[in-house]
Amino acid sequence: MVLSKNKINLIISLQKKKIREEEKLYVIEGDKLVKEFLAAKMTVKSLVAKPEFLNALPLVHKKGVGEIIPVSYEELKKVSSLKSPHNALAIVQMPDTKLDLNHLLKGLSVALDCIQDPGNLGTIIRAAAWFGIKNICCSENCVDVYNSKVIQASMGAILHVNVFYTDLQSLFKEAAGNEIRIYGALLEGESIYSYKLCESGIILLGNESRGISEELIPFITDRIMIPRLHQAGSGIDSLNVSMAASVIFSEFTRSKGRQL
Amino acid sequence: MVLSKNKINLIISLQKKKIREEEKLYVIEGDKLVKEFLAAKMTVKSLVAKPEFLNALPLVHKKGVGEIIPVSYEELKKVSSLKSPHNALAIVQMPDTKLDLNHLLKGLSVALDCIQDPGNLGTIIRAAAWFGIKNICCSENCVDVYNSKVIQASMGAILHVNVFYTDLQSLFKEAAGNEIRIYGALLEGESIYSYKLCESGIILLGNESRGISEELIPFITDRIMIPRLHQAGSGIDSLNVSMAASVIFSEFTRSKGRQL
Repeated sequence: MVLSKNKINLIISLQKKKIREEEKLYVIEGDKLVKEFLAAKMTVKSLVAKPEFLNALPLVHKKGVGEIIPVSYEELKKVSSLKSPHNALAIVQMPDTKLDLNHLLKGLSVALDCIQDPGNLGTIIRAAAWFGIKNICCSENCVDVYNSKVIQASMGAILHVNVFYTDLQSLFKEAAGNEIRIYGALLEGESIYSYKLCESGIILLGNESRGISEELIPFITDRIMIPRLHQAGSGIDSLNVSMAASVIFSEFTRSKGRQL
Repeated sequence: MVLSKNKINLIISLQKKKIREEEKLYVIEGDKLVKEFLAAKMTVKSLVAKPEFLNALPLVHKKGVGEIIPVSYEELKKVSSLKSPHNALAIVQMPDTKLDLNHLLKGLSVALDCIQDPGNLGTIIRAAAWFGIKNICCSENCVDVYNSKVIQASMGAILHVNVFYTDLQSLFKEAAGNEIRIYGALLEGESIYSYKLCESGIILLGNESRGISEELIPFITDRIMIPRLHQAGSGIDSLNVSMAASVIFSEFTRSKGRQL
């Protein structure tokens, strides 16, 4: 079997968000990631891989895959978004999970306001998965979770969280009606080390340089911040948003003794 | 004034670690970073910038600069390591700080074993500066701190910490003789949430995929880990090292009530 011209065009065109949304498909790359997606029984439409990779794959992982296309390294290189492609890539169907407020009533969730850097979104997903946070609500102007750099940075954690795109203002209005707390990470909030954190609520993180949008500020019920141990005015004006996320998730975990 | 052929060659050659070490010089780029370096009175050998940038610069910041070279955008583009260069870059003298064990006797320090990703090193420097950690000891096979991607990711925090390259095994031998604790971040250590953390010691973080080198393990006096709230075997095997660093620095800060 050889990679058809059509398939080549499809894979390359899926680097564009518009096409991904039209086709409801996205591409993942890398041996470990592809194996994890197969093991997790994600709907893989096409598995494009070198014969060595395919031969070493357990039969059970091939079951349910739409089509399996053995290719040479040169063919893989043609369609890869990486400089040095791995041995496998897969075209995956987007899940059709819809955001339901019931998801957010219990436990912790995250809301991301206009996160622009793919590495940051991927890292936040990875941290959320580590700390057992299941639902991430992104504002519509956040970077696309199916961007290949986001998937790469998330290191497979995307399999363990739900990522929704939604209008955060409407979401927070609904949340307020249901007495869901909104924890806003601000530079002038109260120290997370002494603040009484609850077991449930939404942790809201803002854009890399502008922080949380003005129109979302009124919805914040709890203003929290990570204390800085460096002199003010020293030029260290903020932690990177994904580091801040990790620290905040960790502190919620520690203070509540949260468990699986 | 025009950028001479020699200067162009020097700036481009400083993208190589070998040349940086020979010349004891490195390059920083970006308006904010260059301004911060000038304000911090770092030894700037050459300031290469567009006239608008130079005109807006306070006189006091120009004092002490070896040479000031006004250039056009096209000239800047020739020497920049960025796709779209900013308005200024500077050639900076490396500081001549030598590692002294006395630096590590009081307060917290960090040791990094074979950190490879420039973004990770930059982010760890940024987190260290935020949490008031002054000294970072890198193993000799860590990525170079003067790599432009490290400096970019550190967002100016490099001005507030000392970064040393040294043989960690020898350092830890000396540290042991001085009863300095070595906190190793491992996957099977004790939970940082319940472990008694001291106010001083060295936090040791390992390589992105292999963790801490085997030969350094015996020097660890305290084995710590960040509890995971996700099922084991789920494919989420580790936090990114810079996220782990942020969480650990934060937890040392919280638990000791550390202050400036």
